[in-house]
Amino acid sequence: MVKRPVPRVTVQRLPVYLRCLESFPAGRQRVSSDELAEVAGVLGAKIRKDLSYLGTHGTRGVGYDIEHLKHEIRMELGLTRDWAVVIVGIGNLGRALANYGGFGERRFRVVGLFDNDPVKVGTRVDGLTVESLEALGSAVAARKVSIGIITTPAQAAQEVTDEMAAAGLRSILNFAPTVIRAPEGVEVRRVDLATELQVLTFYLAKSG
Amino acid sequence: MVKRPVPRVTVQRLPVYLRCLESFPAGRQRVSSDELAEVAGVLGAKIRKDLSYLGTHGTRGVGYDIEHLKHEIRMELGLTRDWAVVIVGIGNLGRALANYGGFGERRFRVVGLFDNDPVKVGTRVDGLTVESLEALGSAVAARKVSIGIITTPAQAAQEVTDEMAAAGLRSILNFAPTVIRAPEGVEVRRVDLATELQVLTFYLAKSG
Repeated sequence: MVKRPVPRVTVQRLPVYLRCLESFPAGRQRVSSDELAEVAGVLGAKIRKDLSYLGTHGTRGVGYDIEHLKHEIRMELGLTRDWAVVIVGIGNLGRALANYGGFGERRFRVVGLFDNDPVKVGTRVDGLTVESLEALGSAVAARKVSIGIITTPAQAAQEVTDEMAAAGLRSILNFAPTVIRAPEGVEVRRVDLATELQVLTFYLAKSG
Repeated sequence: MVKRPVPRVTVQRLPVYLRCLESFPAGRQRVSSDELAEVAGVLGAKIRKDLSYLGTHGTRGVGYDIEHLKHEIRMELGLTRDWAVVIVGIGNLGRALANYGGFGERRFRVVGLFDNDPVKVGTRVDGLTVESLEALGSAVAARKVSIGIITTPAQAAQEVTDEMAAAGLRSILNFAPTVIRAPEGVEVRRVDLATELQVLTFYLAKSG
């Protein structure tokens, strides 16, 4: 079977489906698309379509095999191998991410912490020594780093992006509250920690 | 005109559209649904449908008025007033959120920080004094708090959820890497900081 390319909007939902599947109690075997849809907050028809891109189809009246589906999504998302990650900007958020349990679970290994503040360089955070930003380029090559995470203040984010791109990183996750521009071929995603709060206020505002 | 109820999936996309609109340079007046779709990473037809729930329709060949659309989305999301927020769990992530610039911008005011660690209680973080968790109930009432943010370790999150619900909070944002259960009438959203990393690895895995 020829697999069709997975649309970007589907890719964005796959981690959500995976998280929902992982939240089911161990030992549970099957889930219907409608139940998964309910937990994930999307329409059942959309889940069935999204999963069909993986070549995965539930059985009518029986649903999806949970373990198989988790495996298929992890394969698709490239989560069956480790990914080395560096964090630049070792303030509170950088420290929080260095310690974040949810990364290790998903096979993201933090292999470097960088900051341009001489007071922070040389200190230890979660078993790693904070390094000078100047060491980023050589570290990316030597440690086979795939992903750079930016947790600097907004005004430093563009410069760090440029340094990450120059160091050869092709994937950047930006937590700084600003829009950054990266060269062609570098995938940037931004995490806005206020997004989910705004979904909550929608419901608060409606309920008066 | 009678407005139709806004589907949950649309509500989840509205903050994304708002963020995209806010990223356009000041002074720019109009945007087409296709350009907004490109920036937001969804289909143009979906944006047009989502925005139609707000009673907002672009003009063919002219697009949407950016300022008007931002206003409409902010109205819908309840962002035209302040919301008081408390944070429970004052580790690195709690501190990072207490300082997070993206909250104030969206009119979220952090009015209380709570922890059950006696070493942390009484210390100052970003102009606020960390309080004992026992003070949560009276603080929620006295400060008219609407939203509780959980940044505790996973094992403490359920107990904090129960205390928040008992204190009368109806909206909870959970950053702890675990699933929590809340009573009927309490809206819980979980932020998984690894989700966006998994979207990045999809593209890394495809590009080899």
